[in-house]
Amino acid sequence: MFKIDLNSDLGESFGPWKMGQDKDVMKSVTSANVACGFHAGDPLVMAKTVELAISAGVGIGAHPGYPDLQGFGRRKMICSPEDIYTDTLYQIGALSAFCTAAGMELQHVKAHGALYNTAAKDIEIALAITRAVKDFREDLILMGLANSLFEKAAKEMEIPFASEAFADRAYQEDGTLVPRKIKGAVLHDSQVAAERVIRMVKEGTVETITGKIISLKPHSICLHGDTPEAVEMSAAVKEALIREGIQVVPLREIVLG
Amino acid sequence: MFKIDLNSDLGESFGPWKMGQDKDVMKSVTSANVACGFHAGDPLVMAKTVELAISAGVGIGAHPGYPDLQGFGRRKMICSPEDIYTDTLYQIGALSAFCTAAGMELQHVKAHGALYNTAAKDIEIALAITRAVKDFREDLILMGLANSLFEKAAKEMEIPFASEAFADRAYQEDGTLVPRKIKGAVLHDSQVAAERVIRMVKEGTVETITGKIISLKPHSICLHGDTPEAVEMSAAVKEALIREGIQVVPLREIVLG
Amino acid sequence: MFKIDLNSDLGESFGPWKMGQDKDVMKSVTSANVACGFHAGDPLVMAKTVELAISAGVGIGAHPGYPDLQGFGRRKMICSPEDIYTDTLYQIGALSAFCTAAGMELQHVKAHGALYNTAAKDIEIALAITRAVKDFREDLILMGLANSLFEKAAKEMEIPFASEAFADRAYQEDGTLVPRKIKGAVLHDSQVAAERVIRMVKEGTVETITGKIISLKPHSICLHGDTPEAVEMSAAVKEALIREGIQVVPLREIVLG
Amino acid sequence: MFKIDLNSDLGESFGPWKMGQDKDVMKSVTSANVACGFHAGDPLVMAKTVELAISAGVGIGAHPGYPDLQGFGRRKMICSPEDIYTDTLYQIGALSAFCTAAGMELQHVKAHGALYNTAAKDIEIALAITRAVKDFREDLILMGLANSLFEKAAKEMEIPFASEAFADRAYQEDGTLVPRKIKGAVLHDSQVAAERVIRMVKEGTVETITGKIISLKPHSICLHGDTPEAVEMSAAVKEALIREGIQVVPLREIVLG
Repeated sequence: MFKIDLNSDLGESFGPWKMGQDKDVMKSVTSANVACGFHAGDPLVMAKTVELAISAGVGIGAHPGYPDLQGFGRRKMICSPEDIYTDTLYQIGALSAFCTAAGMELQHVKAHGALYNTAAKDIEIALAITRAVKDFREDLILMGLANSLFEKAAKEMEIPFASEAFADRAYQEDGTLVPRKIKGAVLHDSQVAAERVIRMVKEGTVETITGKIISLKPHSICLHGDTPEAVEMSAAVKEALIREGIQVVPLREIVLG
Repeated sequence: MFKIDLNSDLGESFGPWKMGQDKDVMKSVTSANVACGFHAGDPLVMAKTVELAISAGVGIGAHPGYPDLQGFGRRKMICSPEDIYTDTLYQIGALSAFCTAAGMELQHVKAHGALYNTAAKDIEIALAITRAVKDFREDLILMGLANSLFEKAAKEMEIPFASEAFADRAYQEDGTLVPRKIKGAVLHDSQVAAERVIRMVKEGTVETITGKIISLKPHSICLHGDTPEAVEMSAAVKEALIREGIQVVPLREIVLG
Repeated sequence: MFKIDLNSDLGESFGPWKMGQDKDVMKSVTSANVACGFHAGDPLVMAKTVELAISAGVGIGAHPGYPDLQGFGRRKMICSPEDIYTDTLYQIGALSAFCTAAGMELQHVKAHGALYNTAAKDIEIALAITRAVKDFREDLILMGLANSLFEKAAKEMEIPFASEAFADRAYQEDGTLVPRKIKGAVLHDSQVAAERVIRMVKEGTVETITGKIISLKPHSICLHGDTPEAVEMSAAVKEALIREGIQVVPLREIVLG
Repeated sequence: MFKIDLNSDLGESFGPWKMGQDKDVMKSVTSANVACGFHAGDPLVMAKTVELAISAGVGIGAHPGYPDLQGFGRRKMICSPEDIYTDTLYQIGALSAFCTAAGMELQHVKAHGALYNTAAKDIEIALAITRAVKDFREDLILMGLANSLFEKAAKEMEIPFASEAFADRAYQEDGTLVPRKIKGAVLHDSQVAAERVIRMVKEGTVETITGKIISLKPHSICLHGDTPEAVEMSAAVKEALIREGIQVVPLREIVLG
């Protein structure tokens, strides 16, 4: 039986400012990466997002980022591993409190934006994040880019790891993403995206931008939810997976169960 | 056997700025109210303060405040009960994560500054804080001013409550503190302060600024630790209590045990 | 010749979050109140909003607020007059720098949200804002609610004052606004709003919610621009005024010229 | 007649947290780099620091930094030149408003911490800062590390430039500072520091850590003021310069006069 988790970044509103189509996206995904107040989200938004996820049966993850609201956590900051460890632990704890209050357990942790990109290539930063995850709870799942240093750090620290792939992004031969500025880096056709995901799940492979077939067997697929088009693609991918007989389930059922 | 807890606000440094004599104060108190990043403290400071408290055998409490670093949480903000509930839950969770990582359980929650003063007189705000404490953990202790609405809220929500009194502050006949701007509001003599605390513990009374004896039997005494003089007074009070045969122990041993 | 200024709060986006229909609103108003980074706006948004205003021939005002992004400056904070004075001066200076860089002079200052409401009824706060305006430039215009303490403060400090009225809000007999929670407080019909404004300008009166005619002769009318409906109303009001032969011009031409 | 300016970073307190010995340092320096609220300082601190500088006859400079209070602007952030330009212009404007209110003109701008270090080696960032300085006022002085890209940027944009050197830091043969982690990077002897400064001023040279004599003729010497030892060294350097017949004067008298 083939299974896959679909995840999306949610709870990215802040104060009076709305972002994302959370209610609609919740219908298509099985895991939510919830912003924790450093790059987006605030306590009220976090409480509401957790509630929304629980109603929708969606697994909840903490989505820690750099302390940079204005830059939305997309500007890299040169922080010490100690800063990253304590910032991550702080954000995990804060989000987890809303899960606890709602009678739910935090499922996973996925770093956001520039922190995600930095950690994927810097083992010290990856280890700092991983250590915070483990110190909070030994069976908390770390989600990260397939084949990146997140995976290495999780193995080293012996915590459960979930690799993620992208439905709408082109891949290079080394398994990394084609940078956004390059033509063809982002796919816009829902059908093409759905077929790629089906192939990843069933065959464990993906066709790179150069036409080569490489190995890629993710636990979760990242879907975007910040535009109406993104929401449509999420729904289309989910539908195609189900039609194909693939079970779309929260991450914990794949990684832990 | 007489018992009392001594508490102090700690972990109030922020980034490059130091505040307080935490290491010295930790020797005199049995419970620490640790700032959670909204009015003071940052994740690194929180991690270090929790570590310091554990080494010293001091019980750890979350010390949530208004989101106002510049004002140090001393400027009242007119927030909705929902804002207060989610801000408090967020801060409790964040601090608790550092306790969890260090293998320790959070002992209590005490509101800071203007939030403390507001809640003491506004039942909606007191209930919002109390609800956050209870939703996080049913046996988490709420600490608040004796005879204030904190006590009422804790009773209403059926969570453990610890009343606190002040060693170095004069009292009015209705059991409230004499405002700081009034002459005689703050006591500067360690011996006088120590004797007042001994009387509170042994007889459950205090002499007001007008000379009247009123009832006051606190679970905890608040000591200040931001000046060398305050640190000396803390040490003097503790020593006097021990000399008098009073056990100075963490809050949980008094309220829960 | 009848003249009136139309003003709107603009530049209220922040980082990745968009707010308002600034480009469309700029077509209908003659003065812009630009957020200065404390309750909304950031340096990049400020630069772009100033540029947009200059292209549209719109007078630029600083729109200082409480330092509370999450609360959008709508939560009252109990600040000292010194805090308000320095916070206001800081925000005026920051916005003015973008005007200077673009070769334009700052036209006016209007407080935002809870700071506006507080100052309208608290002379110490009104004076603190007024003093900041005067200390920055003696001919900088202070805009405030007609008949409020802003007017008194401006007179006392001898700086130019512009009173504003609202096109879409009902008035009480004492000249203050009907609180939003009361039925009938907000007008939704553009035509009715336009007629009220025409009456204010031509006759210097307004009909209160109780049917009484009271005196009200504003220098500027505040229009909202955060919803498509608000933008439509702005356009309708402006059109109606012009049709009526009333000149719609930037504030400085009314107050200073 | 030999002349030199002595500058120091001041106004680095924030809210309830004090930093630096501003009053004492003001006696030794002739130019103050005043924090603008992004990495340190707040509006109240800025107002007081400007006042203090004026009383002491010290020239006032804006000291813009990255928006990172917790990191004190010492953590590099990967920002676009647009972000740097608008952040710098914002901070210059904010500080300048306090100068204006006090009847004084802003003298110079010197970037802080990681922003200073980044700009010294990245021409895009150096140009963004320089453009903000020029757009604010064409005769505003940019202060930067001698022989760095600040100098190149200032030349390119045709604004006045002041190069600074350090009294207590060892130099490499290429004119750059010996990194702090290397032994001998920081000088602790006031007398040695004073003699080095005298040589820079009179001969335009400095002896490197390797013993070579290189050319270095700064307009200003940076002194530190965050520790009692630093304050002593500042006083000693100033005294030695005066004894040597060197005039210690504000930057504008050297660069513009």
